[in-house]
Amino acid sequence: MLADLTIKEFLAKTAGSDPVPGGGSISALNGAIALALAEMVANLTVGKKKYAEVENDMLAITAKTAPLRQRLIEYIDKDSEAYDRVFAAFKLPKETDEQMAVRSQTIQEATKDAARIPMMVAEEVFGVMDTIAYVAEKGNQNAVTDACVAMMAARTAVLGALLNVRINLSSIKDEIFVREMTERADTLEKQSIEKEQLLLNKVKEIL
Amino acid sequence: MLADLTIKEFLAKTAGSDPVPGGGSISALNGAIALALAEMVANLTVGKKKYAEVENDMLAITAKTAPLRQRLIEYIDKDSEAYDRVFAAFKLPKETDEQMAVRSQTIQEATKDAARIPMMVAEEVFGVMDTIAYVAEKGNQNAVTDACVAMMAARTAVLGALLNVRINLSSIKDEIFVREMTERADTLEKQSIEKEQLLLNKVKEIL
Repeated sequence: MLADLTIKEFLAKTAGSDPVPGGGSISALNGAIALALAEMVANLTVGKKKYAEVENDMLAITAKTAPLRQRLIEYIDKDSEAYDRVFAAFKLPKETDEQMAVRSQTIQEATKDAARIPMMVAEEVFGVMDTIAYVAEKGNQNAVTDACVAMMAARTAVLGALLNVRINLSSIKDEIFVREMTERADTLEKQSIEKEQLLLNKVKEIL
Repeated sequence: MLADLTIKEFLAKTAGSDPVPGGGSISALNGAIALALAEMVANLTVGKKKYAEVENDMLAITAKTAPLRQRLIEYIDKDSEAYDRVFAAFKLPKETDEQMAVRSQTIQEATKDAARIPMMVAEEVFGVMDTIAYVAEKGNQNAVTDACVAMMAARTAVLGALLNVRINLSSIKDEIFVREMTERADTLEKQSIEKEQLLLNKVKEIL
């Protein structure tokens, strides 16, 4: 899988002239980065007398973030694979009416999947933004800037994934699907921007 | 070096209870990610009839982004090493007056370096934000969301690095150094936020 590449190799592969891995996979990667940094801040808090009060919360957080990081690592691949399936659908034969109908339906289904997968990334990462804000505020204050970087990476993961949702929605004909996904994307976009801004503003006051 | 680790290994190392690699290294990594995505968009533009007009510009961009990506990859390590040097300075002996003076000066110098290194990351990445906006607007429009994710990663690189600049400035006694770095950080912060917002707003209109 892509996460088994070294960072250098993965970046070189991204930079190349193949459209994947692209922004979708990078969004999932940023989600995994956000989780890793949040986990680090929690780990730097555990075992410190000064933070004994939040010790159990921090342990619960590290238990939660580790498996979620693994899931987001898997999405780095899933996003690229979804793109490949759309691309493959466009290459289906289109000589007979039946072939054209099959091709069109396959494209639609593959494109829906290519919207659903980044939506799952956006949902997963949005779901941990409050946890990141918590480790920033209650965790080891020597690592508060690390928690802020985690929050920024989470924002990129959510907003980047939603861009991939939207670009796929633009070629989906199922109006109910499009409306529901657009409404959810609008909400996640607005709220993820607010959550990041809230934390960065708070930290700016103390730095 | 850290970029020779697989993505999985690097994330596991980040998540652990060692303060490095932390937000500073992740900021440099996001700079390298931004460069890789911008290069991909330029590569997806080169050789396309529709974009013949910007062909030479795109080739010039790929020639520029590749070495800069390498430099940012090096900063992933440099940031962590700078932190380690500050940490080592704090462990110097402080029994005699002379030892205390040497220790204090070594801490100050190491902390200045730990501010200078993320400032270099912020400057380098800020310096390519206009290039990212250019590939987003003039490059292959099928990859416009990839360029947006590049811009978000660049914003994280700049803002994340500046947080690390500021937290180090808070313990530096050289007032001129602190004032100059703070003024530059304020400018870079403001302008990088504006540049990202400008691009995301433009793309939002067309998606």
